[in-house]
Amino acid sequence: MSTAPLAVSVGDPAGIGPEVIAKSWERREDAALPPFFAVGDISAIEAVWKGPVATIADPADAPQAFASALPVLRVADSTVPPGSIDLIGARNALDALEFAVGLTRSGAASGLVTGPVSKSRLYSVGFSHPGQTEFVAERCGVSPGLTAMMLAGPTLRVVPVTTHIPFVDVPDALSIERIVAKGRAAAKGLQRQFGIENPRIAVAGLNPHAGECGALGREEIELIQPAIDRLREEGYEVAGPFPSDVMFTPRHRAAYDVALCMYHDQALIPLKTLHFDEGINVTLGLPIVRTSPDHGTAFDIAGKNIADPGAMIAAIRTAGDCARRLAAA
Amino acid sequence: MSTAPLAVSVGDPAGIGPEVIAKSWERREDAALPPFFAVGDISAIEAVWKGPVATIADPADAPQAFASALPVLRVADSTVPPGSIDLIGARNALDALEFAVGLTRSGAASGLVTGPVSKSRLYSVGFSHPGQTEFVAERCGVSPGLTAMMLAGPTLRVVPVTTHIPFVDVPDALSIERIVAKGRAAAKGLQRQFGIENPRIAVAGLNPHAGECGALGREEIELIQPAIDRLREEGYEVAGPFPSDVMFTPRHRAAYDVALCMYHDQALIPLKTLHFDEGINVTLGLPIVRTSPDHGTAFDIAGKNIADPGAMIAAIRTAGDCARRLAAA
Repeated sequence: MSTAPLAVSVGDPAGIGPEVIAKSWERREDAALPPFFAVGDISAIEAVWKGPVATIADPADAPQAFASALPVLRVADSTVPPGSIDLIGARNALDALEFAVGLTRSGAASGLVTGPVSKSRLYSVGFSHPGQTEFVAERCGVSPGLTAMMLAGPTLRVVPVTTHIPFVDVPDALSIERIVAKGRAAAKGLQRQFGIENPRIAVAGLNPHAGECGALGREEIELIQPAIDRLREEGYEVAGPFPSDVMFTPRHRAAYDVALCMYHDQALIPLKTLHFDEGINVTLGLPIVRTSPDHGTAFDIAGKNIADPGAMIAAIRTAGDCARRLAAA
Repeated sequence: MSTAPLAVSVGDPAGIGPEVIAKSWERREDAALPPFFAVGDISAIEAVWKGPVATIADPADAPQAFASALPVLRVADSTVPPGSIDLIGARNALDALEFAVGLTRSGAASGLVTGPVSKSRLYSVGFSHPGQTEFVAERCGVSPGLTAMMLAGPTLRVVPVTTHIPFVDVPDALSIERIVAKGRAAAKGLQRQFGIENPRIAVAGLNPHAGECGALGREEIELIQPAIDRLREEGYEVAGPFPSDVMFTPRHRAAYDVALCMYHDQALIPLKTLHFDEGINVTLGLPIVRTSPDHGTAFDIAGKNIADPGAMIAAIRTAGDCARRLAAA
């Protein structure tokens, strides 16, 4: 079975997306990257990189072109200089994302890797989704509630049950159903896309010391333990709730495949503390493969040739691995 | 100026306190530890360790005895076997703590290191303080609100503004005054006990992405930034509020001496993820030096000779360093 190339949307053309994609192509052999093509603004790539670019009209042309040039499926050029604040860049990023999602859904691309965008700029051009993940989910016809955002580094994978909401809103946003849905999406995703037959899920508590039997909070008793019980009834291997300050030590990390966390920083603090320049984001629960580097547009360093492509390389490699497993399944 | 020895309370005799204190004495030369003496149950030490013990009656005898034996100032023996559940052990731990605090306050000991206790057992014998820290503060005549619990490892120091309270209670427990008080205690403590003339304090936000200018919560705007401003007016070097998921990377850690965190797990997740077996607890804001290893009684492994003394060694070494600086000031 032949594998289609990966589609990599450039993201905001004024951010570091063009640079880290080009640098990833430069390291394609050392990093053993599968064939991919960029989707976006060619001028933005050429503005920050002097390497060879091959304009392609069809994803099927990408694998051959990939050996000697960075294949690019262009969308209308934005002519936005690196680091500049311009809504044309956001419009361009959205066009590239839409195009790349469509190519992946159709099978012309085997997986989707998304470059960094500015959410606030996207909102300014009428984007009505919280982020790229929800947009991709809608285009795939999947409720965002059935997907899970997994952040992954070399020694840790985390899935936050709640994400970008104020701290004070976290307890009310948690429910048995929501914890179960995220745990299930995480488990199924690890099975389908990561080849882990029986994923071991470690569930974090919400309160200090996981509530100390109710003395420091009751969410563990009323929500988290019942969710764990239900996931076990469904046949998943689940442990917890664990005090979140002790579950990310090397010894504890060795005992699970993914940590299910109750809120954003509970998941992101350990991941970024351990794997700042290597973290990637994988959307589980979609019919397609979708990854992205876990960093932003970094407008402040765009165009300076100092952006680290490590996370983009990891996102491309992981997308390729996941796509191969899905194709073989 | 002669320096008195350190007093090390044994903690719960059925926990790993006796073992890690004895193992610390064994490594006194390699670890360059200052003279110390244990305060507590000799039989608990002898039950888990076959090395030489020297019963002393006066702390002044400890430095000489220290070269060839572990000096112990005994309190009534508890005769509690390792790992056993017995309230006599809690009573014994409390006697040892009270004795060790008194010796340190009087100057007979130059600093206090406290071994691990079981809070729930202490409560059962009538202990009415949340933990050892508050007990020590009261004995020193200092309001716990003016002290700060600092957790420290080789590459990170953190001070949580709130500690052992339910997650849902954190926002209401935060106030400008409380953040300022903890920041001030942290800064003064680092100056007096750690010899850092101008401590650099990094302050964490409460919400994801530090609230994103209010879009994800307003505590940064209403509480944390005003507290930072006030600390700066007092002359301290303070930066933030920072998104807590990015402030513990190696690059960010290099830019501050202590991270002021809003809640327990925000401080403890990065510390334990990075320094699980080496973390120590330092109480700042007291007239005396007080440290402890940042681990519990570990009843499940007590008496098995597998406890790691790393944190106890670090707690003793740090107490010695702090005591020397205080004595020289």
